[in-house]
Amino acid sequence: MRIRVIGMGMGPHHLTAEAAEALRGADYVVAADKGGDDPLLAVRRETAAAHGTELVAVPDPERDRADPADYPAAVRAWHRARTDAYARVLRTRGGTAAFLVWGDPSLYDSTLRIVGELARRLPAEYDVLPGISAPQLLAARHRIVLHPVGAPVHITTARRLDEAVAAGRRNIVVMLGGTAPAPDGLDDWSLWWGANLGTRGEELVAGRAADVREDVAAARARAKEAAGWVMDLCLLRAPEAGR
Amino acid sequence: MRIRVIGMGMGPHHLTAEAAEALRGADYVVAADKGGDDPLLAVRRETAAAHGTELVAVPDPERDRADPADYPAAVRAWHRARTDAYARVLRTRGGTAAFLVWGDPSLYDSTLRIVGELARRLPAEYDVLPGISAPQLLAARHRIVLHPVGAPVHITTARRLDEAVAAGRRNIVVMLGGTAPAPDGLDDWSLWWGANLGTRGEELVAGRAADVREDVAAARARAKEAAGWVMDLCLLRAPEAGR
Repeated sequence: MRIRVIGMGMGPHHLTAEAAEALRGADYVVAADKGGDDPLLAVRRETAAAHGTELVAVPDPERDRADPADYPAAVRAWHRARTDAYARVLRTRGGTAAFLVWGDPSLYDSTLRIVGELARRLPAEYDVLPGISAPQLLAARHRIVLHPVGAPVHITTARRLDEAVAAGRRNIVVMLGGTAPAPDGLDDWSLWWGANLGTRGEELVAGRAADVREDVAAARARAKEAAGWVMDLCLLRAPEAGR
Repeated sequence: MRIRVIGMGMGPHHLTAEAAEALRGADYVVAADKGGDDPLLAVRRETAAAHGTELVAVPDPERDRADPADYPAAVRAWHRARTDAYARVLRTRGGTAAFLVWGDPSLYDSTLRIVGELARRLPAEYDVLPGISAPQLLAARHRIVLHPVGAPVHITTARRLDEAVAAGRRNIVVMLGGTAPAPDGLDDWSLWWGANLGTRGEELVAGRAADVREDVAAARARAKEAAGWVMDLCLLRAPEAGR
């Protein structure tokens, strides 16, 4: 049995040549079905179909969002339930299964943790093919490099932005948005922001954080209105960080 | 006049569908020729040819490496000389020029700074298409996520690793290697290392930093011996950073 973890970027046009080949060579794609009108399932279905590969939708277990204080534990429990559901499908079907990961499997995605566990249990071999990640697409759309010349870039989550700023980070990619992308106190920082990147309802805003705060809020609302969902991220850079 | 900046990942198999389309639609590819047996020029030539697009090699100006203390100034001077050389080619040929960027244009690459200046001068329109970056391929090869669950990842250069550790960073991607990837004092950190990723002579090492120091040195020497050059990077994670 074999599992291939395929980064798909922000849509079918981002599939690399090797990812497309892996997708065509797989017996089926396994994808979580979160119920209702799941836009990411629809994109995966479309991508699999475009390469002649069947998609097996697996109903996604409920995720307990009650206790955000113990976020890692909640995530672990949810991964276990997902892993059980996938294991049943793979045991029944065998062959080569592919997982299509939105963006890249190496950033804020749980697929590798789940597949690692699956591979131990079944057992199965697995490999990973990288895909275009959201910070790269954000940079491409704004035509920027993610850091001043020779300087670092710190990638973190919106939930941990304050901590990064307090610890002295001055050039920060903030992922898994959903909170204000330009918190008070960062008024003079430069902000490059994007929502629903790579989709039709994509929104972009750039400028001095304090000056564009309302533009970001409006653009975020537009993106959500257009798609029914919104995924946003940004790069924040302090004035003293250089260019 | 139009310029397209195309991230090509670590070789032709990493070109995305949209990047391949952009390459086919360009009138020519402009590439720096560093003289002698330039392996990156050879890959660009092969990639352009595979999509039926001519490559124009532009002799690369000398880079002054005498004064590393003023690294940013040296880089700026070198960019200016490169920009002058490219401007002459684009003025003569016109049409749509493509630049093939190794990896992704958003990380430790000067193409965007040069093309931004070129576009202002000519003038020309330009856009950017993302490509697979080295940290993503490193993560894919080692089948890891670049950070512990929900935690940040700090991307920096080998030259600034000590500074990042001193400032409290505990999960660090170190790019532009060439120095020891497991400095003294980080003995208990986990190390995931790779050299010449995506090429035939690719090398990978992972383990506790102190335990694999000699393996990394040997693998680095093998990579250099096989290809005549070596580009390496690593992820370093402190034991207390979590998983």
